[in-house]
Amino acid sequence: MEINVVQKVMKVNDDLAQGVRERLTAARIACLNFMSAPGSGKTTLIEVALRALDGKPAIGVIEGDPDTTLDAERIAACGAPVVQVNTAGGCHLEANLVSHALDRFDLDRLDILIIENVGNLVCPVDFDLGENRRVAVVSTTEGHDKPAKYPKLFRTADLVVLNKIDLLPHVDFDAVFFRDTVQKLKPGVEILEVSCRNGEGVDAWASWIRGAAAAGDKG
Amino acid sequence: MEINVVQKVMKVNDDLAQGVRERLTAARIACLNFMSAPGSGKTTLIEVALRALDGKPAIGVIEGDPDTTLDAERIAACGAPVVQVNTAGGCHLEANLVSHALDRFDLDRLDILIIENVGNLVCPVDFDLGENRRVAVVSTTEGHDKPAKYPKLFRTADLVVLNKIDLLPHVDFDAVFFRDTVQKLKPGVEILEVSCRNGEGVDAWASWIRGAAAAGDKG
Repeated sequence: MEINVVQKVMKVNDDLAQGVRERLTAARIACLNFMSAPGSGKTTLIEVALRALDGKPAIGVIEGDPDTTLDAERIAACGAPVVQVNTAGGCHLEANLVSHALDRFDLDRLDILIIENVGNLVCPVDFDLGENRRVAVVSTTEGHDKPAKYPKLFRTADLVVLNKIDLLPHVDFDAVFFRDTVQKLKPGVEILEVSCRNGEGVDAWASWIRGAAAAGDKG
Repeated sequence: MEINVVQKVMKVNDDLAQGVRERLTAARIACLNFMSAPGSGKTTLIEVALRALDGKPAIGVIEGDPDTTLDAERIAACGAPVVQVNTAGGCHLEANLVSHALDRFDLDRLDILIIENVGNLVCPVDFDLGENRRVAVVSTTEGHDKPAKYPKLFRTADLVVLNKIDLLPHVDFDAVFFRDTVQKLKPGVEILEVSCRNGEGVDAWASWIRGAAAAGDKG
């Protein structure tokens, strides 16, 4: 009985996600779902990409947080269209929230929609939001064991960003253990090393985002 | 209908948590529930406290993780009794899991039980585990905005640990914003600043743990 209720919720989400996907595909917009622990630097990664790409491709952002509009304010300061979704304490985004947020964008003017999920390595993974690709972010300060301890996200990731590599000299991070674990969970997945603070890897990161626009194929 | 199902789950958890609390109280054991984002340093904080206190008070540890026994191995290496609880991908601990884990300890030999919850700033907060006190951990690298964006944990915290303060020179962390937000959410709550790497604040942290044993009052 309780299992039926849960299944029903997931079916409703999957149907809504499919609707989001069809709407974005029709508008030739690629959709990226960013997931990570709180504080791994998702918002900063979006900021540096927006500045590096300077409107080409045109990026819109949905910011998911339990509370505040702090992240949306940072994205708006970069000149990108943004919608803040507050989950009122909820632990993940669902397709229903994304579907409503889509109404606030001028889809004709977008090439890419980036969805920054709630900071959480567990719950967001189960919810399809209509994305084309999933980006998992880990910062060096969180430790090399995070993919091993929270494997589900990494099994479904299309790209893994190892962020805050400028802090590597100051933390105990076993890069070999990290890479080996990620490759076991998702063989062949690309791992990008980035520091938003000193700019290392930012060009490759911006290029990856630019490449993702091809999935939307607005031309 | 769906709301009733959720309420029933919470009622079952609360009843089991009360059972855990009564069992620990009868055994004169204080119980601490550690919550934070993944990678904020909960396990390391337990390791340094175990080493500083050296068995007085006697501490047992329950390690909660979606997967692996990595954390339990670290605690066992410090000589403390430990039980690893794997949630099989689940996002938080529940009293049911703690109740079963309790059977694995010799309660006559413990003064404090530390429960390290799954790394997650949202879901664990709603689940009473039978603890006497809640400890919220934030690391400086996660950013000063985390209490504002994830307020629920901080409203219920009996202690806030700001960890990894050795990294402050290398990150943009507004300590005033952080402290103001925490105090608004839980007026008067104590904030301990700690670096497990250079030892700063570790004495105060170990003293706080020692003081918590008084709640168990084994004498």
